[in-house]
Amino acid sequence: MAETDQALPPSDQLAAMNLTDTVEKHAFSDRVLIRSIVGRPDGGAGLAGQRVRAGGWVKTGREQGKGTFAFLELNDGSCPANLQVIVDAGLAVLSKLVATGTCVVVDGILKVPPEGTRQKIELRVEKVVSVGEVDPAKYPIPKTKLTLEFLRDHLHLRARTNTIAAIARIRNALAFATHSFFQEHNFLYVHTPILTTSDCEGAGEMFQVTTLISESEKLEKELIKNPPPSEVDIEAARQVVSERGEAVKQLKAAKASKLEITASVAELNKAKENLSKLEERSKLKPGIPKKDGKIDYTQDFFARQAFLTVSGQLQVETYACAVSNVYTFGPTFRAEHSHTSRHLAEFWMVEPEIAFADLQDDMNCAEAYVKYMCNWLLDKCLDDMQFMAKSYDKGCIDRLRMVASIPFVRISYTEAVELLEEAVKGGKKFENEVKWGIDLASEHERYLTEVKFQKPVIVYNYPKGIKAFYMRLNDDLKTVAAMDVLVPKVGELIGGSQREERYEVIRERILEVGLPLEPYEWYLDLRRYGTVEHCGFGLGFERMILFATGIENIRDVIPFPRYPGRADL
Amino acid sequence: MAETDQALPPSDQLAAMNLTDTVEKHAFSDRVLIRSIVGRPDGGAGLAGQRVRAGGWVKTGREQGKGTFAFLELNDGSCPANLQVIVDAGLAVLSKLVATGTCVVVDGILKVPPEGTRQKIELRVEKVVSVGEVDPAKYPIPKTKLTLEFLRDHLHLRARTNTIAAIARIRNALAFATHSFFQEHNFLYVHTPILTTSDCEGAGEMFQVTTLISESEKLEKELIKNPPPSEVDIEAARQVVSERGEAVKQLKAAKASKLEITASVAELNKAKENLSKLEERSKLKPGIPKKDGKIDYTQDFFARQAFLTVSGQLQVETYACAVSNVYTFGPTFRAEHSHTSRHLAEFWMVEPEIAFADLQDDMNCAEAYVKYMCNWLLDKCLDDMQFMAKSYDKGCIDRLRMVASIPFVRISYTEAVELLEEAVKGGKKFENEVKWGIDLASEHERYLTEVKFQKPVIVYNYPKGIKAFYMRLNDDLKTVAAMDVLVPKVGELIGGSQREERYEVIRERILEVGLPLEPYEWYLDLRRYGTVEHCGFGLGFERMILFATGIENIRDVIPFPRYPGRADL
Repeated sequence: MAETDQALPPSDQLAAMNLTDTVEKHAFSDRVLIRSIVGRPDGGAGLAGQRVRAGGWVKTGREQGKGTFAFLELNDGSCPANLQVIVDAGLAVLSKLVATGTCVVVDGILKVPPEGTRQKIELRVEKVVSVGEVDPAKYPIPKTKLTLEFLRDHLHLRARTNTIAAIARIRNALAFATHSFFQEHNFLYVHTPILTTSDCEGAGEMFQVTTLISESEKLEKELIKNPPPSEVDIEAARQVVSERGEAVKQLKAAKASKLEITASVAELNKAKENLSKLEERSKLKPGIPKKDGKIDYTQDFFARQAFLTVSGQLQVETYACAVSNVYTFGPTFRAEHSHTSRHLAEFWMVEPEIAFADLQDDMNCAEAYVKYMCNWLLDKCLDDMQFMAKSYDKGCIDRLRMVASIPFVRISYTEAVELLEEAVKGGKKFENEVKWGIDLASEHERYLTEVKFQKPVIVYNYPKGIKAFYMRLNDDLKTVAAMDVLVPKVGELIGGSQREERYEVIRERILEVGLPLEPYEWYLDLRRYGTVEHCGFGLGFERMILFATGIENIRDVIPFPRYPGRADL
Repeated sequence: MAETDQALPPSDQLAAMNLTDTVEKHAFSDRVLIRSIVGRPDGGAGLAGQRVRAGGWVKTGREQGKGTFAFLELNDGSCPANLQVIVDAGLAVLSKLVATGTCVVVDGILKVPPEGTRQKIELRVEKVVSVGEVDPAKYPIPKTKLTLEFLRDHLHLRARTNTIAAIARIRNALAFATHSFFQEHNFLYVHTPILTTSDCEGAGEMFQVTTLISESEKLEKELIKNPPPSEVDIEAARQVVSERGEAVKQLKAAKASKLEITASVAELNKAKENLSKLEERSKLKPGIPKKDGKIDYTQDFFARQAFLTVSGQLQVETYACAVSNVYTFGPTFRAEHSHTSRHLAEFWMVEPEIAFADLQDDMNCAEAYVKYMCNWLLDKCLDDMQFMAKSYDKGCIDRLRMVASIPFVRISYTEAVELLEEAVKGGKKFENEVKWGIDLASEHERYLTEVKFQKPVIVYNYPKGIKAFYMRLNDDLKTVAAMDVLVPKVGELIGGSQREERYEVIRERILEVGLPLEPYEWYLDLRRYGTVEHCGFGLGFERMILFATGIENIRDVIPFPRYPGRADL
């Protein structure tokens, strides 16, 4: 390999290099990030001559030159691009390095490859530090091209593929963009509870959380190992109590010594205690505890029925009505048997809530937030977005640019219905009938944003009959101050509203929709005491990733998808 | 109020003011944040003469000057300081403004108050825009001084108190510091699942998540409304089938027309369908579905038993072994009946995982992360920290400064035990015996960090017998590469380890601790295919807040605490 050493820049050239042209070591590892080499604008060319330690997994590898050296495409997940690594046969058994999925750590020197190659830089290995081998015959994902559906059966390995790794980086970027946006605008991040005893809106199928089943199984096992006392055992214990009682009586009658009496009373008490323990145990019954024919939830962990949250909105309102601007960002749950490409049983939601603000402010915030995320991806994830554009959705980058730059159309629900009716008159066929009062179906939303306007659309002021009780009643008494943000590719991305802050009105609305008041007393308190105009919205985080990447199935944009019948790992 | 108008700076003075001395309006509201006035280094004095709209809740209010005007201390949660607001009687019914908890929005002009007052600025109201009244006789938290224990019974209102609001801001700051730290160091935020079918470490009491109970209750109700068919109903349906079958036969025998036969066959099929529906329904039994005497989890939502996660570590390792540097930050759960001031059933954990890194790297990362959070609070939350120092823990700011600046002590477990044994010899009394092999108790940890070193201590290389199977076995075969970070005030803040990356060794360890291999096959795959040296740790987020603020009870540093018997809202 002597000839390649000659490609090294002479030391004066090295010295002339910009000092910033040193590869940064990872702060908590002795290797460099591959992105800090190949992710540079010059593709890493300016780093020629540097000695680095790199680690990663082999994307593709091949032996060359009749087995005298090997080319490895190495990736460590820090960026979509690989580092080309060249290993001489003298340094390692090359056949153990080339299989897809092999993990290698190598020391080497960065060199400019011969002209005509795609890479701007390659790593000439001087030492193979460690190898995590792969038997390609057994490796579940030995190829680089595998369907997303196939990968769903290998959740623990799928992040090693280009697609799932790119989605992970985009998801990470959108999460941090979310925090950055709200922090910049003085919102406080509030952790609303996952376990809840409130059923938001009385809607939606909820997962129940309990320890009753495990407790009852524990008891069942215990009772098999150590059966409860029989009536005979208890009778015998009763007999002992009565005998001991008799003994005490006799000693007292015989005016025995205090010492003797005390000892005898102690014996009696022991016998009584034993009896009461046996009686207690005899009451134990296997199975979930019941009272009056119903499950006795006072014996459950929280002393009442508990569920997984479907939304943190109601709870986060308690913070908005105290510290003004807040948001939640956390997992939410629906126990719906939906087998579609748009539903998950566990998904992440972003829910800001703004005090001293109305529906206009809400729309402004939603629009600014979506634009911010689009700009963030264009700024910080362009390489990953280019990968998505190349592999999945060639329009995805243009879509981000469009949404980031164009003002969102804002139309009332009534206008939206008129536009849809016009479309029907013009020959457009919808599966769901269009008339004032309907909940807009996905096909209607997609028509408005993808066909009619070809840009994001905010629809506001919906009929109260199709919306939740907490949305503010408009002066027309027919509509509420709700708004949905519709975007091309996914339709509804955001749903929000100004909240009803008037005590009498919201109380009436709760009753009107047939809900009981009692569970909402705490929520009503927010209106009883120091009520404030406020609004908020919810963004389905996975929908935002679908919108950004063009990926079709929501199961592929969350690391560990949960849906009916599946919760792997 | 003519005299106060004279305090207005003349217009030329106004013009001479620095242009940056304009109060910034909140981006999504027409009011200003109170922090943007009183949170300035000059206390807001430089803003005199500006007209602003402010909104907030009254902390304290009083009528003055025989009811001619009122002083209100207004707070909107943006900072611990209040804005002093002065309202003339002509503008509103003053008695409706002064109750603690009242929400007011006012327009006014900022003025420098008379000399000798604490405030640097006050707001002279020109218009009362809106009022959310409070009846102090009914308001659950009418006073400003209430115990934290009392407030736990009013979760929905407690964020309106100075303490809970300050904790909310500190918690928010630490959460964003966490994201900023890991993002700056190129870690990807990975959302590990809340619902899991893996039981991490086989340890810890887990909450079960199920739809079996609600499904069985739904069925029960349905069967009452619409009882299952009786044996007589089914016999009758069978009879119909046989009659229809006979009819078909006769028509065929009689060589009836095709039309007649087809119609008759259709009738037969309808009867058969009805019979099979009835038979199906007759099998429905109320109660949780069972098979072979056990609960039939194949009928549960995920077709198997599911739980709430106790840690995202094992799952996030799948990402570390693919994209190198990752972290989780999310809720975790323990169904333990702990009634202590240090345990919650739902709490938040930060769990980074680093590939190509060993125990030293792990300790470096943990130390850098804790220091980063301390510096962040000192930089961005000093006013809240001053409030905590004044009200709860006078040493809390010094503690942050110390931890931010002093290198953490690092000692092996063996050294730690020797130091504890020395202390015992010197007369120190511990409740738990000290000898090599024990799990360090809280009292031991507190002694090391608070008494012996009086600074953060990292203890590493623990006996394998007291640690989890996934921690890397050291060459001595007696200890594992684990580490705990101990800090004054709370003891253990972080627990971490280098993970066992050697397939044969970890397989042996799983068996050694008595766990089955099958549920860990996916975890073993990470070692079978392209294994990598890696490490990670977990930080209990609420513990970090306790450490920072000096608050004693963990139930006060999470917005919605969940513990045995309680899950309000």
